[in-house]
Amino acid sequence: MTLKDHELLASGERKISWAWRYMPVLKELKARHQAERPLEGRKLACCLHLEAKTACLLLALKDLGAQVFAAGSNPLSTQDDVCAALRERGVTVHSRRGMTADEYVENLRRCLMEGPDFIIDDGADMVYVLHSEMPHLLKDLKGGCEETTTGIKRLKAMHREGFLKIPMIAVNDALSKYLFDNRYGTGQSVWDAISRLTNRIVAGSTVVVVGYGWCGKGVARRAQGLGARVVVTEVDPHKALEAHMDGFSVMPLLEAAKVGDFFITVTGNTRVIRSEHFSVMKDGAILANAGHFDVEVCIPDLEALSRSVEESRPNVRSYRMEDGRELHLLAEGRLVNLAGGDGHPVEIMDLSFSSQLLSALFLVDNPMAPGVYPMPLQLDEEIARLKLSSLGIAIDRLTEEQRLYLESFRE
Amino acid sequence: MTLKDHELLASGERKISWAWRYMPVLKELKARHQAERPLEGRKLACCLHLEAKTACLLLALKDLGAQVFAAGSNPLSTQDDVCAALRERGVTVHSRRGMTADEYVENLRRCLMEGPDFIIDDGADMVYVLHSEMPHLLKDLKGGCEETTTGIKRLKAMHREGFLKIPMIAVNDALSKYLFDNRYGTGQSVWDAISRLTNRIVAGSTVVVVGYGWCGKGVARRAQGLGARVVVTEVDPHKALEAHMDGFSVMPLLEAAKVGDFFITVTGNTRVIRSEHFSVMKDGAILANAGHFDVEVCIPDLEALSRSVEESRPNVRSYRMEDGRELHLLAEGRLVNLAGGDGHPVEIMDLSFSSQLLSALFLVDNPMAPGVYPMPLQLDEEIARLKLSSLGIAIDRLTEEQRLYLESFRE
Amino acid sequence: MTLKDHELLASGERKISWAWRYMPVLKELKARHQAERPLEGRKLACCLHLEAKTACLLLALKDLGAQVFAAGSNPLSTQDDVCAALRERGVTVHSRRGMTADEYVENLRRCLMEGPDFIIDDGADMVYVLHSEMPHLLKDLKGGCEETTTGIKRLKAMHREGFLKIPMIAVNDALSKYLFDNRYGTGQSVWDAISRLTNRIVAGSTVVVVGYGWCGKGVARRAQGLGARVVVTEVDPHKALEAHMDGFSVMPLLEAAKVGDFFITVTGNTRVIRSEHFSVMKDGAILANAGHFDVEVCIPDLEALSRSVEESRPNVRSYRMEDGRELHLLAEGRLVNLAGGDGHPVEIMDLSFSSQLLSALFLVDNPMAPGVYPMPLQLDEEIARLKLSSLGIAIDRLTEEQRLYLESFRE
Amino acid sequence: MTLKDHELLASGERKISWAWRYMPVLKELKARHQAERPLEGRKLACCLHLEAKTACLLLALKDLGAQVFAAGSNPLSTQDDVCAALRERGVTVHSRRGMTADEYVENLRRCLMEGPDFIIDDGADMVYVLHSEMPHLLKDLKGGCEETTTGIKRLKAMHREGFLKIPMIAVNDALSKYLFDNRYGTGQSVWDAISRLTNRIVAGSTVVVVGYGWCGKGVARRAQGLGARVVVTEVDPHKALEAHMDGFSVMPLLEAAKVGDFFITVTGNTRVIRSEHFSVMKDGAILANAGHFDVEVCIPDLEALSRSVEESRPNVRSYRMEDGRELHLLAEGRLVNLAGGDGHPVEIMDLSFSSQLLSALFLVDNPMAPGVYPMPLQLDEEIARLKLSSLGIAIDRLTEEQRLYLESFRE
Repeated sequence: MTLKDHELLASGERKISWAWRYMPVLKELKARHQAERPLEGRKLACCLHLEAKTACLLLALKDLGAQVFAAGSNPLSTQDDVCAALRERGVTVHSRRGMTADEYVENLRRCLMEGPDFIIDDGADMVYVLHSEMPHLLKDLKGGCEETTTGIKRLKAMHREGFLKIPMIAVNDALSKYLFDNRYGTGQSVWDAISRLTNRIVAGSTVVVVGYGWCGKGVARRAQGLGARVVVTEVDPHKALEAHMDGFSVMPLLEAAKVGDFFITVTGNTRVIRSEHFSVMKDGAILANAGHFDVEVCIPDLEALSRSVEESRPNVRSYRMEDGRELHLLAEGRLVNLAGGDGHPVEIMDLSFSSQLLSALFLVDNPMAPGVYPMPLQLDEEIARLKLSSLGIAIDRLTEEQRLYLESFRE
Repeated sequence: MTLKDHELLASGERKISWAWRYMPVLKELKARHQAERPLEGRKLACCLHLEAKTACLLLALKDLGAQVFAAGSNPLSTQDDVCAALRERGVTVHSRRGMTADEYVENLRRCLMEGPDFIIDDGADMVYVLHSEMPHLLKDLKGGCEETTTGIKRLKAMHREGFLKIPMIAVNDALSKYLFDNRYGTGQSVWDAISRLTNRIVAGSTVVVVGYGWCGKGVARRAQGLGARVVVTEVDPHKALEAHMDGFSVMPLLEAAKVGDFFITVTGNTRVIRSEHFSVMKDGAILANAGHFDVEVCIPDLEALSRSVEESRPNVRSYRMEDGRELHLLAEGRLVNLAGGDGHPVEIMDLSFSSQLLSALFLVDNPMAPGVYPMPLQLDEEIARLKLSSLGIAIDRLTEEQRLYLESFRE
Repeated sequence: MTLKDHELLASGERKISWAWRYMPVLKELKARHQAERPLEGRKLACCLHLEAKTACLLLALKDLGAQVFAAGSNPLSTQDDVCAALRERGVTVHSRRGMTADEYVENLRRCLMEGPDFIIDDGADMVYVLHSEMPHLLKDLKGGCEETTTGIKRLKAMHREGFLKIPMIAVNDALSKYLFDNRYGTGQSVWDAISRLTNRIVAGSTVVVVGYGWCGKGVARRAQGLGARVVVTEVDPHKALEAHMDGFSVMPLLEAAKVGDFFITVTGNTRVIRSEHFSVMKDGAILANAGHFDVEVCIPDLEALSRSVEESRPNVRSYRMEDGRELHLLAEGRLVNLAGGDGHPVEIMDLSFSSQLLSALFLVDNPMAPGVYPMPLQLDEEIARLKLSSLGIAIDRLTEEQRLYLESFRE
Repeated sequence: MTLKDHELLASGERKISWAWRYMPVLKELKARHQAERPLEGRKLACCLHLEAKTACLLLALKDLGAQVFAAGSNPLSTQDDVCAALRERGVTVHSRRGMTADEYVENLRRCLMEGPDFIIDDGADMVYVLHSEMPHLLKDLKGGCEETTTGIKRLKAMHREGFLKIPMIAVNDALSKYLFDNRYGTGQSVWDAISRLTNRIVAGSTVVVVGYGWCGKGVARRAQGLGARVVVTEVDPHKALEAHMDGFSVMPLLEAAKVGDFFITVTGNTRVIRSEHFSVMKDGAILANAGHFDVEVCIPDLEALSRSVEESRPNVRSYRMEDGRELHLLAEGRLVNLAGGDGHPVEIMDLSFSSQLLSALFLVDNPMAPGVYPMPLQLDEEIARLKLSSLGIAIDRLTEEQRLYLESFRE
């Protein structure tokens, strides 16, 4: 091992050890199940953002008995030092920061070729590759879990078309996940990343949030909390009206494009900000994406309109338009909080990954038909209760009288 | 007509005319359907808060052809001047401010005895009286709409037990209703009422919000917006965790009771604040209820603990405890925003009552089996679109490419 | 005494008794000084908003020995029931709700004719009448206190021109006053009054705050807290920039006039909203003033532009423009929180009036030359400490080492 | 020049070029004065945080004719790549990241030995060294500017004791500086740094802000905007009461120490968090300082209480207490936003450094006696106007009638 390897490993170890400190729910779940080793002999293939919090999940799965094979879900979210530490501790890792698109798919294949019993996916690419390229593996696969809104949307489309052959638990839709991860996690980490990448003031600026789903709500709220004027664009009339009532300005993106200082896409859709919008933006505007894939800010359009491109700061690509204006794209249009920062705060991933862990354990004991399933409410509540308990927070219980009152329609 | 009657009528007319100015969606819907008079010959029995915005709904229903029979849903929310104006315009009204509990039920019966085709209910008491006392009327009844969370909870219980014999549309669960009415409507109007009843400062005070559903979220958010420190109590672990992550303190009510300056119940449950809590409250604490029934703050317990009671200000009853402390109950523990103020802001009721109107029209054309039904999404979206349009707000549309992308799982 | 008089008196007593409950600082100061009666034999002439909190101040002054003569500072802020209760308790009151401009001045004269030793003024009208009409009284007058920003601005102008012949303490500029009264007091009470006068939703509306001084900051912050989009107009570049950085939109009033749903003037200036602005406002806009005099919204211009005027709701005057648009003026353009509500929350006036009380006591013992003086910092801090103590809040003290460190420039 | 030197230089150039894009006021001021070169032949010694925005100021000063000698004001805020770029462009720089305390003072001396005409200081160390070690240079020195609250406090102490022999402009006290830099700048950058150093969630956490001056207000407001519960500790009763009314919890630090997840000191004092507080903190608490010197969190006390120390993450030092608890100190207790991040956002420093530039130009033309002077209001307003203009924001002007009204006391 070279000196540099040693340093890399030490850095990864420190990061994992730091995260572990602030993941009390995962820690408690691991402690509860460690003796019985419920995943003994099981193979787990994962496609996840390979940074410190994920490492804590993978190591917990391993400590419960599983053999873990991990691929990175994004070339810019993979942290090489964390991968080094995972390998040292016995997890098989196929990824590197900056991997190409081809390498990315090849890494998925390598994990799948191990013949996993279970899958944990983030965006449904692993499930897709599995079904389209390695259908022979399907029969032995017990099922999997999916982490993201985008992944679940895809899984449901697969299921609708009869393409999906395994049961998948929609971990994203667990209350312990989407109520927290998508709002508080994305909300804070997007601004953390934008601040560190640009060193610009948010107070007084005009922030355009494209999409007012759970993630968009989180991003908009934090922008307001940092002193911005927030503009929301939407395609759904109720979400548009909610944004209006939340005190934000609502308008079509073509209008918003003219006034924004920062643009953040959180739609789960494609080609959301494109030529017509770039053409009317102010000089110096910042473009960031917090949706799953790097297709929301249309980079080909941006390139077509530019006479030159420059790396102005690390992870900031500045496109000089023909008319002299500059537009700055953060983190290559990939998930800005992961590619330009450390991703969600630790405590948030404690909830999300505890949901993953409990869902995986549930799959072991409960064979199911192909389909997309919610995480059982009882497990979901267990996570919330463990989290409250770790915070030292007690809550009320219904009295028997109240329980009966709620069930009755008589006065 | 005496001079006082004239004044009453004029006052009611002015209130209705004021509200009508700010109800563009209801206005537009009425205009659209007025020529065809789709409710011609139909009898409508309603149990609603009889104030100006409700009057606008009732008059719109009448203008679409219906014969309208209205009972007040709460003795303190009934405004006599508005009732006078309704009667003048041909609506049959059975209610008066300050009516007794017996009168209240008798008023429901009177409306029902007309043999209505449809019902609009607020809390499900009219539906309950109908089923338990006048089952012979059920066979001619086409169905009804329910306005509140509490009412829907009761209807579902009735349906579960096979008691419900008509189709009811859960208007409360429409996006155009609960996303707005329960958060922004309750949020603002509760504080408007508390301020006017007490003239006390909210900034710097400790506000205890009991229940963190949609209404509780609205009340808590506005309390924070007014500068309070907010304490939330809950029985549901996810809602408790949400409140915690929203920056509020979460604790059992018995702890919260010791620190609160204002207590607002929004649970839909019974005997929520009771002896054990009153016993530890600070001198001067304010008690208000924003849940449907006047059972959340347990008045019998309050009376049992008091050595004297006094009306300190209009609608403020001060209970002097044996140990000298005073606790002040607002609006007799009834819905404080309606009993102590003018209820929800006009624009909010424009959305809620437009949902009622469209649901009623839907029932006319679509006979359904007994049960509790959601309002059709298409109607729900229509309301949001009309509201946005009245505000001059345009929103984006998906491109064809984007529509396909959302439906596909292939990259 | 007629039955109506009895009821009036009882109502006034209840209001005063309610306020007294929540004025711990004034209560404590009164208790401290009551035995020595430091104002024995002194005559005090006051021009103040004659409602319950003011009554508590006047009664406290009386209990410390003073003979109190009170005039109302605004025809719409005078509450007749409170005046009745004050008279019953021995305060001489010259005012009535709805008094004319002539009566107003005549009431000031009546108080002054008693030959006061001290004055408490609100807007400097009493001081002005005294100097311009009754200069013979000046030689025996020990001095006075002024409550408002506007009054102090006028007193300083008087002093600049050599017109002022008595010492006046600028109570408004005390930290215990302007930091709290002008922000939290005005902030909350303006919205309380607007809500009750209009029953309109603030969330989602566009609120134009004209002037971003301490009062304007309070009004803007609460508007945001209630969910509004806030527009600020200013003449001062730093205040404009502060508003921008606080996340508000800044523009000239002529632009703001086109987009506002609510307009609130808090400038201390004259003819601020006038013809040119009324001409471009939206139908249904609400006009309210929270500055001292009723000249900020230019009523003559409004009348000149209207083809009809109507009282749409109590205290709401609706001006129908020639082109059909309606603009609604609240509380005749007078201080909306006092004329349309109960004025500042009780706890706020506890601080402001405790400042008045301590300033009055200070004047008794400390004769001063004519001029405008700050309230002594020591008294100012005493009030803050008493308030904290009444809340049960302890704060830190500097260590000796820290005290020396702060005074030194050596490291 | 080695490859590494080339890379360092390029990196510094990129950072400076990025900052320059977002400093429109400084850019405009430079453009206005560049032709006349008002600083031709003048020597300027500066002690400042040597990062990109400062570089823009130094280069602007150079472009106006000055010879610039710069020392870094903090070992952890000095960025070596920026220094390289400054040197390349002709600024004399004495600093390096990680310099020792001795080197720091030696660097100040080196700049002073050049015999400057003017000084720009940050914390008053350069002025102190000048007076105490090199008094012979004083007679030729025209004066200087001071950037910080702490520096001005020290300069005033020097002046009080007759120690100060030159005129110093208190740039910190300019409206264009302290209203923006200390609130919005510190507010955002402190949280940016804490997030990137710890990857922890702010929402739901308890943040203890020690000191509620302008900086503390900014830090507290952003903490709330990020979803924290905020606790404030103070020694001043009015500031404590403000914090209470702003909705924060106020308590002595010894109480706050038990409940905080994050502690941020912004007092300008010494030994603020010390043994007694460390002893009761929760395991995992984060300690950060945003005050000028690294004495607010008492590191000797922390070391005395620890059984081991570890670098858990870059710039995070973890002290393991005897009882097993860990406390994590960020950035060695130095200004966390500068030592752990990139300092204030660019646009903020545009205002602060434009104030420095105009103050320096003012000193050239206006010789003054020793003392501490405010920046002339006219210059201060000019900066605000230029900033508004760069944002495309127009504001209102007083009419002649209004101007007269404000000056008059007659109605």
